[in-house]
Amino acid sequence: MTQKVTVVEVGPRDGLQAEAQIISPAQRTQLITLLKTAGLACIEVGSFVSPKAVPQMAETHVVLESLKSLGSLDPYMVLVPNDQGFQEAARAHVKQIAFFTAVSQTFVQRNIQCSIEESLLRLKGMMPQAKAAGMRVRGYISCIMGCPYEGDVPPAAVVALTEQLLMLGCDAVSLGDTIGVGTPHRMRNLLKQVKQVAPLSALALHCHDTYGQALPNIYEALSCGLRIFDSSIGGLGGCPYAPGASGNVSTEDLLYMLDGLGMETGVDRSLLLQATVYVRDTLKLPLRSRSACADLKI
Amino acid sequence: MTQKVTVVEVGPRDGLQAEAQIISPAQRTQLITLLKTAGLACIEVGSFVSPKAVPQMAETHVVLESLKSLGSLDPYMVLVPNDQGFQEAARAHVKQIAFFTAVSQTFVQRNIQCSIEESLLRLKGMMPQAKAAGMRVRGYISCIMGCPYEGDVPPAAVVALTEQLLMLGCDAVSLGDTIGVGTPHRMRNLLKQVKQVAPLSALALHCHDTYGQALPNIYEALSCGLRIFDSSIGGLGGCPYAPGASGNVSTEDLLYMLDGLGMETGVDRSLLLQATVYVRDTLKLPLRSRSACADLKI
Repeated sequence: MTQKVTVVEVGPRDGLQAEAQIISPAQRTQLITLLKTAGLACIEVGSFVSPKAVPQMAETHVVLESLKSLGSLDPYMVLVPNDQGFQEAARAHVKQIAFFTAVSQTFVQRNIQCSIEESLLRLKGMMPQAKAAGMRVRGYISCIMGCPYEGDVPPAAVVALTEQLLMLGCDAVSLGDTIGVGTPHRMRNLLKQVKQVAPLSALALHCHDTYGQALPNIYEALSCGLRIFDSSIGGLGGCPYAPGASGNVSTEDLLYMLDGLGMETGVDRSLLLQATVYVRDTLKLPLRSRSACADLKI
Repeated sequence: MTQKVTVVEVGPRDGLQAEAQIISPAQRTQLITLLKTAGLACIEVGSFVSPKAVPQMAETHVVLESLKSLGSLDPYMVLVPNDQGFQEAARAHVKQIAFFTAVSQTFVQRNIQCSIEESLLRLKGMMPQAKAAGMRVRGYISCIMGCPYEGDVPPAAVVALTEQLLMLGCDAVSLGDTIGVGTPHRMRNLLKQVKQVAPLSALALHCHDTYGQALPNIYEALSCGLRIFDSSIGGLGGCPYAPGASGNVSTEDLLYMLDGLGMETGVDRSLLLQATVYVRDTLKLPLRSRSACADLKI
């Protein structure tokens, strides 16, 4: 089995949007550039959402213009919640878009103000134009292990939604344990079922570290054959009012494990620390990455 | 394979001794009582070392007297570094002692001021009296995955030392990744070799979470058949001057995983949170347990 693993860096979007501090488009561009330099081949750089709803992601088009002036936009992904956002992404010549849905009606409603079915119709509507523009399309499925509003989620619902997203034309599906409640046996059970309807190369795992379980779950997913994992520099994405609360699994801790397992990621951990330091100095946050704290001796 | 797992709580000793704040024997007793009430069947409650060297562990005899007045001393373990400490433990009628050594000469020298060979002679010297008193004896092997002073450590050295400790009469050996540098494949490789010389029932794993790798390593050890794991309430044991730095794997996160895997620990997670809250309120530390922060919504 291949030892190549793709780490999808989601800190500049999923991470930053959950932090109270707002950093400028220039600072976001600098962070993304450091991440790119460290070897991350796919980076989620922003979203086209209402700046009133998510001020952290305002002026994503400015970030993209800066990135374009520095090189190709190929490595960069942008989240679009609806057709309006999609049109902005198209105008910015984005090459990868991500679209959000979830296995919980309540969660989808609160996030993009529509039902699961309506979210799929939105996606279906934008797909022809996305394909014509040569965009890669990623579908996010949130709440795969449980929903903060609806509680437990049946694995069959995740399987069915994965299948629908792929049938609609998604190139990849990112399975998100958004509230970090999963443990390895449940993860294995779910992935075994999802693998029946999706090729491994189209599946990513997106683990939040709320209960400290992200790495054992990712380790289990590796042994199930998955090779794409989302993570966030410095563990960005926790609540700034809660020093210990945790967001996405940190890219640093994930890479420490992958390096130790002999997986090839193309990422240089010492260069990555420059991005970590930038996050710390810019956002003035306590880092939520254990290995970064160890490496930086803080 | 049995689903029973023993969690050995080391917070009141290995945890507290690494924290700058010193809490009183009465507070230590209160913490230990809360841990016992939560269902922890083995708790390391202190050590008989010089109070000048380790002021956090001063008056361990007072803690033991208080615990004795509340019930049996059977669940409690005490660390003894030498014969003087052992005699104090014997006078206190302790039923379980732990003895420290490591696979690194420098680490042993810095911790108990002797060589590895001398440490084994010390243990040999106290063993007849320990056995006569019906004590259980645990041997700690530190630095199983690497030493802060000497770097890499060959697995064969860990195997040989495990064998020696068992031959000297230890009932159990706790394998400590004291600096938290291990990853699952290395852990599996080491445990495969150690299992050749030791029954699984005599092996414990002691993981520090320095690089965030404790739970994947423990998960791997579970699949290797180990069923005894050390952990520390609230992740006690990090450096108080480093908000993110990490000590032992937290008991809360370990139990979250074990519960999710269907393992029987006898520990009630909601009762355990009362000990967590006591640690937070007494030591005024940011908690180093992700699940505790999630459960307490802090």
